[in-house]
Amino acid sequence: MNAIVFDQMLRFVTDYADPVPGEGEVLVAVRLAGICATDLEITRGYMGFRGVPGHEFVGTVIKGPRAWRDKRVVAEINCVCGQCDMCLRGLSSHCRHRSVVGIQGRDGAFADMLVVPERNLHEVPEAVSDEQAVFIEPLAAAYQVIRQCPIERWMRVAVIGSGRLGLLVAQVIKTCGCQLQVIGRNPLTLEFCEKKGIQGTPVSELVPRGDRDVVVECSGSPEGFDLAVRLLRPRGTLVLKSTYAGDAPLNLAPVVVNEILVLGSRCGPFPEAIQALARREVDVESMISRRLPLSKGVEAFELAADSRNIKVLLKPG
Amino acid sequence: MNAIVFDQMLRFVTDYADPVPGEGEVLVAVRLAGICATDLEITRGYMGFRGVPGHEFVGTVIKGPRAWRDKRVVAEINCVCGQCDMCLRGLSSHCRHRSVVGIQGRDGAFADMLVVPERNLHEVPEAVSDEQAVFIEPLAAAYQVIRQCPIERWMRVAVIGSGRLGLLVAQVIKTCGCQLQVIGRNPLTLEFCEKKGIQGTPVSELVPRGDRDVVVECSGSPEGFDLAVRLLRPRGTLVLKSTYAGDAPLNLAPVVVNEILVLGSRCGPFPEAIQALARREVDVESMISRRLPLSKGVEAFELAADSRNIKVLLKPG
Repeated sequence: MNAIVFDQMLRFVTDYADPVPGEGEVLVAVRLAGICATDLEITRGYMGFRGVPGHEFVGTVIKGPRAWRDKRVVAEINCVCGQCDMCLRGLSSHCRHRSVVGIQGRDGAFADMLVVPERNLHEVPEAVSDEQAVFIEPLAAAYQVIRQCPIERWMRVAVIGSGRLGLLVAQVIKTCGCQLQVIGRNPLTLEFCEKKGIQGTPVSELVPRGDRDVVVECSGSPEGFDLAVRLLRPRGTLVLKSTYAGDAPLNLAPVVVNEILVLGSRCGPFPEAIQALARREVDVESMISRRLPLSKGVEAFELAADSRNIKVLLKPG
Repeated sequence: MNAIVFDQMLRFVTDYADPVPGEGEVLVAVRLAGICATDLEITRGYMGFRGVPGHEFVGTVIKGPRAWRDKRVVAEINCVCGQCDMCLRGLSSHCRHRSVVGIQGRDGAFADMLVVPERNLHEVPEAVSDEQAVFIEPLAAAYQVIRQCPIERWMRVAVIGSGRLGLLVAQVIKTCGCQLQVIGRNPLTLEFCEKKGIQGTPVSELVPRGDRDVVVECSGSPEGFDLAVRLLRPRGTLVLKSTYAGDAPLNLAPVVVNEILVLGSRCGPFPEAIQALARREVDVESMISRRLPLSKGVEAFELAADSRNIKVLLKPG
């Protein structure tokens, strides 16, 4: 089959072995897939991943139990053992033996087909288009923020970073009715915020006053942490969404002195994301900058790294 | 009066101006004071403090409202405005305009006398000796850990650092009945743990398995943070108690991936600490290594910096 493969370098191949579903797995034909920051990090060595990247996708089940056959689906990305201490505790997204679609130990969606566990599937309702559905995985990660840190109307909230993830997180938080500001560097994405009725502030114009109740760090840079701490009031909450490779110099003393609560936050609930898209509470379609065929995948990665583009999609076939 | 003064260097003086209580303040004759890590940090430039350090003390009220006269007291160290957004919110330990006894903008207890706000006073019951009472402030800070992060019997907890603060935190956590381990470098203090029925493990013998529910970082070193993250299970809680000056290289990616909750923790509730000492639930007297007169204060600071001593006390007069 056709696939984008990363192995020291990224390339498009036409002779990748067709995936074969194992016990409890289904075969999915990819309809559409999205490129995210983690995919770009993978090409820089993140997770030491080798194989087919891609974990944001919508597809059609072409082999599996009759109940799922021909269904339009998305899939959660953590493939879990169901037997370790974390799984037994109900924390299966932290399974000790997990593989992760297109990120860790398992091929992903930048291909004609991929294999995922049946238990990971969610059917996509008719009200949600393919171009919306490809955002379900990252939007679920955005919903994880308000699941871990419920946002009340009275709160003053800032999102640091106006990239793909920051824009999704900001739209989710906006539904909570709180005072909200997105802080970023990219005029294009800050303008997107303003169009959505969300205050967008260039980081260069920001004066931190230590008065935010909640700050969500989506910038993927060490400076984001430092800025977040300066924005927060004492006893405020810092939600860490983005990762970056390697160590960075940080000062944790203000976290102690101001008794800040820091919450690491990763994957989130698919049902909330699907519902929000079906009800059009979150606009993802305006975030799509480019649509390319799978065969142009290498070029698509380059475009996704360019700040003039927000979301870049890949379509097999 | 006699006082230990820090101003670029630490020295004992006999001609320091007697403190004069202002509106709402009382004058306290110091009976006994303790040297802690923050005092040592102050002599290295922490907080840019100049004046009389010392914030762990017990004394006798010698000037103030009749109700407090001649009472044996301890005092909370945050002196607050009562009017800023934090005070009005009930978070007065985070007062925007606070001074802090012996740490920030206000002379402390390494002197014959000091002045504190009346509202900060707590009477010391007869059941609590002076040598116990001098530990009330740091013990309250230890109680803050279980106030912010309630510890259940089923939890596996580790305390990193077997210094003065670590030993207090460990004793407080032990009262929760959980599985507890103190990780440190100092054979003397690890032996203290074992005597108290708490497992003490040299950091050199430790094999982190990612299975602790709660880790309390009391080591005051950047390595402590990294070790804590490796000890914790996914979704575990890291309580940060200790600060150190300056930036240190840290990797926050595991905090995000494992969705760790990090809690900064500072000052705590005096009543809990007083009760625990009155009931002899926490042993502080065995932690006292040396008792020196105030005139030997400079030497006492040197002794407190020596790992062969746990707690060093200063007695005026």
